[in-house]
Amino acid sequence: MKTTILKGTVVSAPALGKLDITENGYLVAVDGIIQGVYETLPPQFAGCAVEDCGSDLILQSFADMHLHAPQYPMLGMGMDLPLLKWLDTYTFPTEAKFADTGLARQVYRQLAAELAKNGTTRVCMFSSLHREATLILMEELESAGITGYVGKVNMDRNGGVNLQETTEESIWETRRWLDECGDFPHIKPIITPRFTPSCTDELMKALGEIAGAQNLPIQSHLSENTGEIAWVSELHPECAQYWETYAKYGLWNSRTLMAHCVWSDERERRAIRDAGVWVVHCADSNQNILSGVAPIWVMLNEGVRVTLGSDIAGGDHLSMFDVAAASIRASKARSILDNWQTDFLTVAEGWYLATSAGAEFFGEKPGFAPGNPLHAIVLRDDALPAVRKLTARERFERCVYRRQEGALRAVWSAGRKIYAAE
Amino acid sequence: MKTTILKGTVVSAPALGKLDITENGYLVAVDGIIQGVYETLPPQFAGCAVEDCGSDLILQSFADMHLHAPQYPMLGMGMDLPLLKWLDTYTFPTEAKFADTGLARQVYRQLAAELAKNGTTRVCMFSSLHREATLILMEELESAGITGYVGKVNMDRNGGVNLQETTEESIWETRRWLDECGDFPHIKPIITPRFTPSCTDELMKALGEIAGAQNLPIQSHLSENTGEIAWVSELHPECAQYWETYAKYGLWNSRTLMAHCVWSDERERRAIRDAGVWVVHCADSNQNILSGVAPIWVMLNEGVRVTLGSDIAGGDHLSMFDVAAASIRASKARSILDNWQTDFLTVAEGWYLATSAGAEFFGEKPGFAPGNPLHAIVLRDDALPAVRKLTARERFERCVYRRQEGALRAVWSAGRKIYAAE
Repeated sequence: MKTTILKGTVVSAPALGKLDITENGYLVAVDGIIQGVYETLPPQFAGCAVEDCGSDLILQSFADMHLHAPQYPMLGMGMDLPLLKWLDTYTFPTEAKFADTGLARQVYRQLAAELAKNGTTRVCMFSSLHREATLILMEELESAGITGYVGKVNMDRNGGVNLQETTEESIWETRRWLDECGDFPHIKPIITPRFTPSCTDELMKALGEIAGAQNLPIQSHLSENTGEIAWVSELHPECAQYWETYAKYGLWNSRTLMAHCVWSDERERRAIRDAGVWVVHCADSNQNILSGVAPIWVMLNEGVRVTLGSDIAGGDHLSMFDVAAASIRASKARSILDNWQTDFLTVAEGWYLATSAGAEFFGEKPGFAPGNPLHAIVLRDDALPAVRKLTARERFERCVYRRQEGALRAVWSAGRKIYAAE
Repeated sequence: MKTTILKGTVVSAPALGKLDITENGYLVAVDGIIQGVYETLPPQFAGCAVEDCGSDLILQSFADMHLHAPQYPMLGMGMDLPLLKWLDTYTFPTEAKFADTGLARQVYRQLAAELAKNGTTRVCMFSSLHREATLILMEELESAGITGYVGKVNMDRNGGVNLQETTEESIWETRRWLDECGDFPHIKPIITPRFTPSCTDELMKALGEIAGAQNLPIQSHLSENTGEIAWVSELHPECAQYWETYAKYGLWNSRTLMAHCVWSDERERRAIRDAGVWVVHCADSNQNILSGVAPIWVMLNEGVRVTLGSDIAGGDHLSMFDVAAASIRASKARSILDNWQTDFLTVAEGWYLATSAGAEFFGEKPGFAPGNPLHAIVLRDDALPAVRKLTARERFERCVYRRQEGALRAVWSAGRKIYAAE
């Protein structure tokens, strides 16, 4: 039995908008599983080594629920283009390069290291359509200590010359990939039709069957952009709404993640909620490529499960600190847009979405709940001056908003220390 | 005569939306004054030392046209509050602490160093109402190599117990401050009524007279928030619009900077343009404290002079890279809000606003124009992987959006190298 004890200012998000704060507290895990957060160390742990973080903040690590690994090399490029043009001009040509396994190894190793360094310990990630590069991505994430799901992307139409499979290839390669990726302890496969315009009905049907037969989760895109929605409606005149193009093929259930949902109206949001589908909100991406500003506050009030994604490279920041702050800021833009008839996300709410909400998809309970695997970051926040002693809550708020270089001291993922500063 | 020659990928913004790019170019300054950007080194400079930056990007440094120095210690705090509540709960109590000159020295030294490290070489800055702390701020900026204007804040009403002057005090202290701050070579005074709700008519009148008599520039806030506008209208029933409360006292001319202008309607914008007043757009701040999303694209099309400000601590980022990207993103939110009837800022346009537009207030011409003092940054952008050789323009775009740790290699301000990495 291996006991891990972190001592410091422990802050966690046990419910939307709520913070549990224990100053000089002990976060204890045994064999990587959290036992609890204590004000004084329980007697049964006396004598165990304590990692004393001083007054540093000990927080939950992040869950990035939507990002595109092969787009990492194009971060911040092509940002003057709207979604569909941006896909054709930048995204698809970049992804096509991942036929090269050497390139995949190099880029994905760097990406995995960057995720760890930024405190993102759980991911749901799109690869490209390439089976081999996808396996390399899974390997690199696994060896960097990240937990999560990776999907070989399926696309048998509208991808262009170098980024398209035949329907047969797509199904065959998916099956083969699933056979080959069974052994990673922390990185698991997720069925990943790129989005409806990229997948024929035959492919969608096959993917729904595979997901059902092998009990796999599903990820895709939904109602990101009005142009995209119009296109889907042309492709599927038989479906009243975009979501039905997934639902009709068994790709719409309580283990389905749908990125964006910027333009999901009340009816579509009800379908999301009723099926238990998870929305992945990607605030920066939605503004960068001119998609819109999603009504997150409304969704939360309707009982929709909302998580956050960096969505690189539509999003330009890998750090989930930035993503959390961006989601808060976007909710304020949305509130302004709604003439203040809707409310905004508080700092505590933004933080919950970036941590606990995504963790729930992995079967965790919110916050540092007993039974959860230990996913935590240690933050030193003394780089800025203070004119008075700050409360732990104020320190926490400032850390969410304000990146301080070198602030992240250590990262724990599924019980393992995967990053330490210096 | 001291000649400075920087060799690298020289990118500058000679007009809104335009980029001049010279690969393997030479940026030459003599005695701190730019002579030109050359593809090959002119013969008269043969034999002069060349600072070879390899393929690094050589860009204009930033002009941050609105920020509050004493709010630096509260960066990222209180972000769940709207403007007027945020002022009372966080801002005013924090600023009141700057009666302590020791604290001022410590905070302002750190702030000045951070500005230099982030490539912000020109500023227009609010201090607090304290004369001594303001002089300390000016000293610290001067010795860090920053150029610009600093204002002792005037406020003789609505500031609360510890942050208010009598009208007499405010005028007297302003005169004394102006007498005492005449000797800084790069840091000059600017008349700074906090905003109309903070200043009685008598004070406004006196400030207008001082500005006129001593030929000083002016900075304040305008139409940031609907609650504030309603308040100003109660305080000044004789003025049809907010801007008139400045204009009637001689505080409205072509050397006046007005932060925000989020809610300036067509009439107010016309008054801004006709007087040659400079708008300082502070995108993040406006969203953070729920003010609104300013119609920047419309203003630019109407011929209004727009610059950018970090507005710490309503804004949460000191880096003008973040501020430029935020202004671009906000312009997209605005476009969405306007149902795509208005356009957004391109990357090149956002960059222009963050550099050339502000520099113009200091009498410079846009871009690396001959005759300008040398204000430049050197950026190394090799931290991210690339799947192909990027164009200089793509590298530039990516640098604007994507902070890369350690990317900033050197900063030149008014001809002096004020920061070098390592």
